[in-house]
Amino acid sequence: MSIVSEKMYQLGSKRSEIRELFEYGKKRIAEVGKENVYDFSLGNPSVPAPDCVRETLSDLISGDPVSLHGYTSAQGDAGVRAACADYINKTHGTGVTANDFYMTCGAAASLTISLNALAGEGDEVIVLAPYFPEYKVFITQAGMKCVEVKCREEDFQIDFAALSAALNAHTKAIIINSPNNPSGAVFSPATIEALAALLRDAEAKYGRPIFIIADEPYRELVYDAETVVPFIPNYYDNTLVCYSFSKSLSLPGERIGYILVPPKAAEHDAVYFAVCGAGRALGFVCAPSLFQKMVPACLGMTSDISVYKQNRDLLCEALTAYGYKVVRPDGAFYLFVKALEPDARAFGERAKAHDLLVVPSDSFGFPGYVRISYCVSTDMIRRSLPAFEALAKEYLG
Amino acid sequence: MSIVSEKMYQLGSKRSEIRELFEYGKKRIAEVGKENVYDFSLGNPSVPAPDCVRETLSDLISGDPVSLHGYTSAQGDAGVRAACADYINKTHGTGVTANDFYMTCGAAASLTISLNALAGEGDEVIVLAPYFPEYKVFITQAGMKCVEVKCREEDFQIDFAALSAALNAHTKAIIINSPNNPSGAVFSPATIEALAALLRDAEAKYGRPIFIIADEPYRELVYDAETVVPFIPNYYDNTLVCYSFSKSLSLPGERIGYILVPPKAAEHDAVYFAVCGAGRALGFVCAPSLFQKMVPACLGMTSDISVYKQNRDLLCEALTAYGYKVVRPDGAFYLFVKALEPDARAFGERAKAHDLLVVPSDSFGFPGYVRISYCVSTDMIRRSLPAFEALAKEYLG
Repeated sequence: MSIVSEKMYQLGSKRSEIRELFEYGKKRIAEVGKENVYDFSLGNPSVPAPDCVRETLSDLISGDPVSLHGYTSAQGDAGVRAACADYINKTHGTGVTANDFYMTCGAAASLTISLNALAGEGDEVIVLAPYFPEYKVFITQAGMKCVEVKCREEDFQIDFAALSAALNAHTKAIIINSPNNPSGAVFSPATIEALAALLRDAEAKYGRPIFIIADEPYRELVYDAETVVPFIPNYYDNTLVCYSFSKSLSLPGERIGYILVPPKAAEHDAVYFAVCGAGRALGFVCAPSLFQKMVPACLGMTSDISVYKQNRDLLCEALTAYGYKVVRPDGAFYLFVKALEPDARAFGERAKAHDLLVVPSDSFGFPGYVRISYCVSTDMIRRSLPAFEALAKEYLG
Repeated sequence: MSIVSEKMYQLGSKRSEIRELFEYGKKRIAEVGKENVYDFSLGNPSVPAPDCVRETLSDLISGDPVSLHGYTSAQGDAGVRAACADYINKTHGTGVTANDFYMTCGAAASLTISLNALAGEGDEVIVLAPYFPEYKVFITQAGMKCVEVKCREEDFQIDFAALSAALNAHTKAIIINSPNNPSGAVFSPATIEALAALLRDAEAKYGRPIFIIADEPYRELVYDAETVVPFIPNYYDNTLVCYSFSKSLSLPGERIGYILVPPKAAEHDAVYFAVCGAGRALGFVCAPSLFQKMVPACLGMTSDISVYKQNRDLLCEALTAYGYKVVRPDGAFYLFVKALEPDARAFGERAKAHDLLVVPSDSFGFPGYVRISYCVSTDMIRRSLPAFEALAKEYLG
């Protein structure tokens, strides 16, 4: 018998495949030099934060340190929450208020707090594969069952027949992540409308609300004028928006985001109180104060994401030319590419021999693919292309 | 049936008594003016962060934003952890390493992660009353039973007979908080030696490790030359140190701290991995990056705590003169004063009539007292004294 929690030991001793690969990359760089390793493992933004971040931080730290670094309310500074509400109302034509927001310590916190707030005995949460592997960890830790529904392989859009079959009397929520990690797929307004209709039918059939948990760290990261990222509460009332500024402002390490419980959500106040309670029980009260206070000046700003667009186009074109099967992603900064053999891990190992570090898709619940994070320098992508070509030739001749 | 977690709803809808009082204070200030309300409710440091904080933050934000704000390793930046290890080794003559540290998002995170890492079926965690009310929330959320053992009323030191009676085959850990919130008591080296001996006996008797979880946000806040705060791992191997920079550096809102799993702890690697796993499952990977990187330059620094000493002495002297029963605290910034009637809540209400906001002790597991946070301006304390005197006269004539 271990003296520690067996579950936590398992989670902590088996590092995630992504982190494992990242650590391998650091070792490999020490051996063969930075310029010879093509690390596409991590979703760590590569473009600097926009100027508003440095300017606002600089202004803030020249002010009174006691109020700046002091506790805010558990749910976040009231002025910050009001600014978030104003911004959302202006952008999406909604009528949300400061009291619908709960500031969080980043996207992971937004998700664990939301899931723990909703969790009831026997509840199930649907995830659409491919999905961010930690969803399963967060759902099971909250005491619920993670139910995987695969997206359509041709475009990574929702397979409504499969989703419909997965809905039942135990379904408490579905996590939607659009733009998606790892596929880069964006769900269109028509898709969200169809999803909303299906969920409303299921709510009526089973007599209980089914929540959409909208995990939206990539909301702003779309690259084509025609790509619209629908604001889900405008389509479906029972939505919790889990937002993070990590990717849009290139601040992944700073852990700042929010949960929005829109006014029309079923039993709004009970849900909001449960969010407050879960934040308290998990140890999350008061999101980091300085970064909370940076938010109002930076709402709606983004890093220079044109670099990601350039990277996407460069990689899509080259990989397609080499014979890889690529679904061109509309957003986020990931390319989800079919492995050139059925076993993605074996393929990933052969890629490693070319010092190409790509993440096998098994842990995303969608075997047979690899994830390529293109939030890297365009120069590294250019240098990596011969390796991608050589790898393809091993399989395709 | 609620559509949300009943437990989380209860935790979120019933605000903690401390927060409740703080919100009342804000309302009351709006009614009668800031100078007429004596708010002793919150443990929010009132002295500014030391200069090293602003200087270091300023230097950091003028550097490369990509690496500054990027993800660190899940357990924290390696250089930051190495600096923490060096500092602890120099200060306490230990041999800890960077790999014994897990950087956290503040004291609450340190505690919830540690508790979830250790939690096993049927396990119990002992808390010494009076104790910080959230301990009970954190312990039960981790699936363990919170067992209260009262300290001695005359000096708030450990009642070893009571503690001994509480130890059993289910005891997994005991939380030690010295300097203590709310009593301000500091456990001497002799006390910690006696505690260690008692726990070692219990470990031998029950054939399993019993951990000390040392919650140490107030470690540096002691005011007299003769007061020593023992470094518990030097007395007892199976200790997890939960440290936070919130109080020493006056940064409570920034959420930065660490867990130290000392090398000699039983099954050190399993415990450390379980800490990593619990951080992951709760949504805590990567403590806020900017504030992690501020840590090395500020280790061992404190705000100007002479203000707290002055406040303590002023309040102790005055309250004793008015007839209150006061145990002079050696550390932290709280005074734990016997209420002048058995019901502390009723006493708190009568204090409110004088616009004195003090926290009834019931939620600290030690009825009949009130907590006075003296991390306020000395001027406010001076202005509050006639109100304390008038309140005492109502009871004592």
